[in-house]
Amino acid sequence: MVGQMFINLLENHPWFNVTYLAASESSAGKSYEEAVRGRWHISSEVPGYVRNLMVEDASKVEKAMGKCSLIFCAVSLGKEEVKAMESLYASKGFAVVSANSAFRLAPDVPMLIPEINHEHINIIPTQQKNNGWTKGFIAVKPNCSIQSYMIPLHALIVKGYKIKQMVLTTLQGLSGAGYPGPSAYDLVDNIIPLIKGEEEKSEIEPQKILGAIKDGKIEYDTSIQFSAHCTRVPVIDGHTVCASISFEGKKPSEKEILDCWKNYHSVPVELGLPSAPEQTIIYRNEPDRPQPRKDRDSGKGMAVTVGRLRTCNVFDYRFVGLSHNTIRGAAGGAILMAELLAAKGFINK
Amino acid sequence: MVGQMFINLLENHPWFNVTYLAASESSAGKSYEEAVRGRWHISSEVPGYVRNLMVEDASKVEKAMGKCSLIFCAVSLGKEEVKAMESLYASKGFAVVSANSAFRLAPDVPMLIPEINHEHINIIPTQQKNNGWTKGFIAVKPNCSIQSYMIPLHALIVKGYKIKQMVLTTLQGLSGAGYPGPSAYDLVDNIIPLIKGEEEKSEIEPQKILGAIKDGKIEYDTSIQFSAHCTRVPVIDGHTVCASISFEGKKPSEKEILDCWKNYHSVPVELGLPSAPEQTIIYRNEPDRPQPRKDRDSGKGMAVTVGRLRTCNVFDYRFVGLSHNTIRGAAGGAILMAELLAAKGFINK
Amino acid sequence: MVGQMFINLLENHPWFNVTYLAASESSAGKSYEEAVRGRWHISSEVPGYVRNLMVEDASKVEKAMGKCSLIFCAVSLGKEEVKAMESLYASKGFAVVSANSAFRLAPDVPMLIPEINHEHINIIPTQQKNNGWTKGFIAVKPNCSIQSYMIPLHALIVKGYKIKQMVLTTLQGLSGAGYPGPSAYDLVDNIIPLIKGEEEKSEIEPQKILGAIKDGKIEYDTSIQFSAHCTRVPVIDGHTVCASISFEGKKPSEKEILDCWKNYHSVPVELGLPSAPEQTIIYRNEPDRPQPRKDRDSGKGMAVTVGRLRTCNVFDYRFVGLSHNTIRGAAGGAILMAELLAAKGFINK
Amino acid sequence: MVGQMFINLLENHPWFNVTYLAASESSAGKSYEEAVRGRWHISSEVPGYVRNLMVEDASKVEKAMGKCSLIFCAVSLGKEEVKAMESLYASKGFAVVSANSAFRLAPDVPMLIPEINHEHINIIPTQQKNNGWTKGFIAVKPNCSIQSYMIPLHALIVKGYKIKQMVLTTLQGLSGAGYPGPSAYDLVDNIIPLIKGEEEKSEIEPQKILGAIKDGKIEYDTSIQFSAHCTRVPVIDGHTVCASISFEGKKPSEKEILDCWKNYHSVPVELGLPSAPEQTIIYRNEPDRPQPRKDRDSGKGMAVTVGRLRTCNVFDYRFVGLSHNTIRGAAGGAILMAELLAAKGFINK
Repeated sequence: MVGQMFINLLENHPWFNVTYLAASESSAGKSYEEAVRGRWHISSEVPGYVRNLMVEDASKVEKAMGKCSLIFCAVSLGKEEVKAMESLYASKGFAVVSANSAFRLAPDVPMLIPEINHEHINIIPTQQKNNGWTKGFIAVKPNCSIQSYMIPLHALIVKGYKIKQMVLTTLQGLSGAGYPGPSAYDLVDNIIPLIKGEEEKSEIEPQKILGAIKDGKIEYDTSIQFSAHCTRVPVIDGHTVCASISFEGKKPSEKEILDCWKNYHSVPVELGLPSAPEQTIIYRNEPDRPQPRKDRDSGKGMAVTVGRLRTCNVFDYRFVGLSHNTIRGAAGGAILMAELLAAKGFINK
Repeated sequence: MVGQMFINLLENHPWFNVTYLAASESSAGKSYEEAVRGRWHISSEVPGYVRNLMVEDASKVEKAMGKCSLIFCAVSLGKEEVKAMESLYASKGFAVVSANSAFRLAPDVPMLIPEINHEHINIIPTQQKNNGWTKGFIAVKPNCSIQSYMIPLHALIVKGYKIKQMVLTTLQGLSGAGYPGPSAYDLVDNIIPLIKGEEEKSEIEPQKILGAIKDGKIEYDTSIQFSAHCTRVPVIDGHTVCASISFEGKKPSEKEILDCWKNYHSVPVELGLPSAPEQTIIYRNEPDRPQPRKDRDSGKGMAVTVGRLRTCNVFDYRFVGLSHNTIRGAAGGAILMAELLAAKGFINK
Repeated sequence: MVGQMFINLLENHPWFNVTYLAASESSAGKSYEEAVRGRWHISSEVPGYVRNLMVEDASKVEKAMGKCSLIFCAVSLGKEEVKAMESLYASKGFAVVSANSAFRLAPDVPMLIPEINHEHINIIPTQQKNNGWTKGFIAVKPNCSIQSYMIPLHALIVKGYKIKQMVLTTLQGLSGAGYPGPSAYDLVDNIIPLIKGEEEKSEIEPQKILGAIKDGKIEYDTSIQFSAHCTRVPVIDGHTVCASISFEGKKPSEKEILDCWKNYHSVPVELGLPSAPEQTIIYRNEPDRPQPRKDRDSGKGMAVTVGRLRTCNVFDYRFVGLSHNTIRGAAGGAILMAELLAAKGFINK
Repeated sequence: MVGQMFINLLENHPWFNVTYLAASESSAGKSYEEAVRGRWHISSEVPGYVRNLMVEDASKVEKAMGKCSLIFCAVSLGKEEVKAMESLYASKGFAVVSANSAFRLAPDVPMLIPEINHEHINIIPTQQKNNGWTKGFIAVKPNCSIQSYMIPLHALIVKGYKIKQMVLTTLQGLSGAGYPGPSAYDLVDNIIPLIKGEEEKSEIEPQKILGAIKDGKIEYDTSIQFSAHCTRVPVIDGHTVCASISFEGKKPSEKEILDCWKNYHSVPVELGLPSAPEQTIIYRNEPDRPQPRKDRDSGKGMAVTVGRLRTCNVFDYRFVGLSHNTIRGAAGGAILMAELLAAKGFINK
């Protein structure tokens, strides 16, 4: 699902050009169109530009050499296999921008939401040194469940407000589970109150993203506590979050929060990154929004939509957030990372 | 929807016998079957026992006199009209057991979850005195969204644990909205993160239920704070809740919580109330339960199913609860109340 | 799914008693409860009566000997493996009543809808002779897609009307695909206009069911032509059919058709078979019925609901039919067959 | 729904410019954004170009005079009111291109699928003469349910094959019912086998579209018989049809049918109409296509997708067709009609 979304989003990309495709051995030697026959899920047709591109065996890194310098990586492999493959490509000089989770918690691998922790790219030279790599490196995107609340939180943090605690419940779309994902039998007239491993990711990854580089490592910001309940609902795309937050120290008024969101300064926009949405955070005044089907495509799927800001009986405030999980939360987010890395000179445009 | 569920659940009731039906003037004079033609939603057919019963005009209380002594009331009217109607019947000597919200916060009207606050029925003589009623009275059931967490909470409270705070997100079924309720256009590939008025009810009603009679009033227990996010999901029946709780003082272990739930002592069971489920709280060990379609009918829709008990990063514990909203949360809950009132001598069996 | 439905429906069966369970080697040695842990899909809990029954290895027929005389068979195996297994049990003297498709088109195996072709059980002695079996035999139920139109058709045929052609489109529920069946990703905001192999079964099997025994074989009635479009829709249980029919010769009036359905004489009812619904064909006058969720459980899932009878611009008449696919169309239908066989002396009650 | 889709599709239209908006009196005087607040259903936001355009009272035709010459009309009024309104505008010199059904069967009003019966625009001078109109006229689009089969049929007819009979079942999306349309309670775990009035339209309108102008009237082609079963399924957009057809005389081979579809000559493409899809009929070889969510947006919602061509036991062939009901079947189809009328000189570009 994520790989296909990369293909869709990279069509006509102004900076990047898809020149090389690799997959498992069983797809090697086929055209992309053949390789995905009967498994192309996200729209009616495989984009024309990539149909006849030959798929190579991803385990043979030498095939890629000279064909490209940046690798977008989204695979269905075990953690150790992912680590081995991504390290292999990095060791051969490729910039690896990964949608996989294997390296997310590694202290010298930046896990980026470009609006928030773009400075974490400065860990890359340390990573290269640690591994003896001269040119290649690995950068990863975080889990798809966190964008809907991390960007709204960051808009407050960057204005000097200190978040203390956040309790959240996600209602996540099906595409986040890959294909085939859950059975229709389990999601008609039903919801599933569990997504394996998702709550842990939704709690820990934010602490790394909000952390800082210190002594050659990205140190976690453990001053904020997150508690996540993750549920699966019969929605195709879009992860919705119901969030309650408490502040440490100075508390903003509702108006101040809305101002933080409305006037959020986006580094990706400032840098002119092609995938950055014009308005990063969209606040909707209608009391029943955001809704996944109606709001997920805002900003071409790269904006975060927020609504229902109100006070909380237990914490300070509550709101509802929404982001598109396979665009902002996966392929689009990874492309935005690659654009950031290119703008900062880590990748050739 | 709730009215129809009353009809379904009262078929073959061992204590109560449906002898009289009343509705709006437009239905008066029709058989029940005619009155609900094209509007019978909950199962394939109107139960035979009630098909030919004549529907009377509910505004004419004298029609009911001598026909019955207990009135179950579920109507779609404005708050003041409901108050007027329920008071009228009570003033004429009827026991009014209501699924409506109009009197829920009245200090001399018991709002009952029979397992929890059965003692609140003792306010009834005060209510009768306040109104100058000799025999009639009003008792109400709480909102359908709260049973999934109030009974599990009560199982802890009754064992001496003190709950301090609870943050919860509900994923509520469609039948809770009545018919026609939300549009299918809004609930295919979508969820709605708002149910008007539901969050307030879900936060305030628990404080009354946990309160105590003092000085002729039911005083709220404001030592517990509730914060509720209420969402609508494409599920027919069943309200699911994702809850986080913190304790004041002594904290139970996971095992102690499970024991509280497993060994929950139910006064309705003790009293032999016909609608009381044998096992009030069912804890499921499977990590992906409870699920609405699979668990809502447990205990004939009167049990509460709980799962996923685990610690919380922000509070002390988290869990998922589920109850059937039109049975336990509405008609079934009201019938259980009436059974309690009958067992305690307030209503003739 | 079908196996679990057998377990549900056989609880408290007045004639049959579940004494023995067998499954694949991997389940052997476990209690039934353990064997289905995490895979019990059809209701909240495994029925108590069968939880602790030990599951045996189905390939070891000798284990079953002396434990039971009737075997209900629903497995997920290849056609040849099913044939081998069912023949093995029949050869050892068991009455094999099968929900599998392997033997459906065998000329000496009765494929029964007890209301329609109960006389086909008379092929059993021939089957036994052909195979050298003295006591055992195999009888099969037809595909779950055909009950919704075959019983309504039979009600006309039995009154002397001759059907010439039928064009039908089915909208089939998910449980018919087994578990996990189609992906939720493919059935939210979507339908699938294909069910592999289903159209062929829906066209051929009716011809065998309407056929007659001749020269030791069940000969197909090829005077009726069926054309089936089969689609999958996001419905849990219930197969709906939109059917157009033409007659050869005498054409009934609408009223005559309704009379045929209303007064349908059911041999299973006459024989007092426990699973036979009191009213086999239920005609609903509401213009928007039958609907799967509202009508599938009629007659405890054993009735066929019909509606929207009207003339057709191309053929003679059109109607909509509905039956519960895992009850009438699978486990319930197979149990009704076994009851027929018991009533006729082929199986000991 | 259709009105909103007009707004979406006319953004940046190369020939037409939205200069004037009118609605019911209750919306008059508001900006378009205000007028649709809380009722904008089809995407995240009202297009910017139209937000501040003032909405006028549609009953005051004089307000429109001088502001525009072409009126797209989609309203929720009774048949006679629609006729009065559309006639009023036509009488004042406006070209009225209507998505309403009121005039569809009028013998001097062209009901156009531009690919099929573009020549019917030649009835317009007669219509003007009949009504005493000098410049204005009315042209209408047919019902949204028929595009999925009429264009594939036309591709055969235009090559000289004569269709005799067609039996079809539609599985129609929710947006075809307008907003709010059916209740979610009726379409979760359910389908509705009735759409009021839809079957009649689906049977009669094709005969007019395939007819010819004779003696100042569009005469129906009654040599083809259509029989339609129309059902509602939980799909947002997209009407799917399962169709069986028989031929009179020469029967094409499967390959010939596929060639007719593949090489379909589209007059709108030839005329360079901006909304004409490059490939009008898309045949998909995958056995499980077309599917509404995956194929409805083909050709920007203006293509018709066909699949599963195969022989029929009863008729000659069967296939599955799909078209987007609010684009090709409504607003997009009406815009294509207006483009045709402009290309032919009936409307100023």
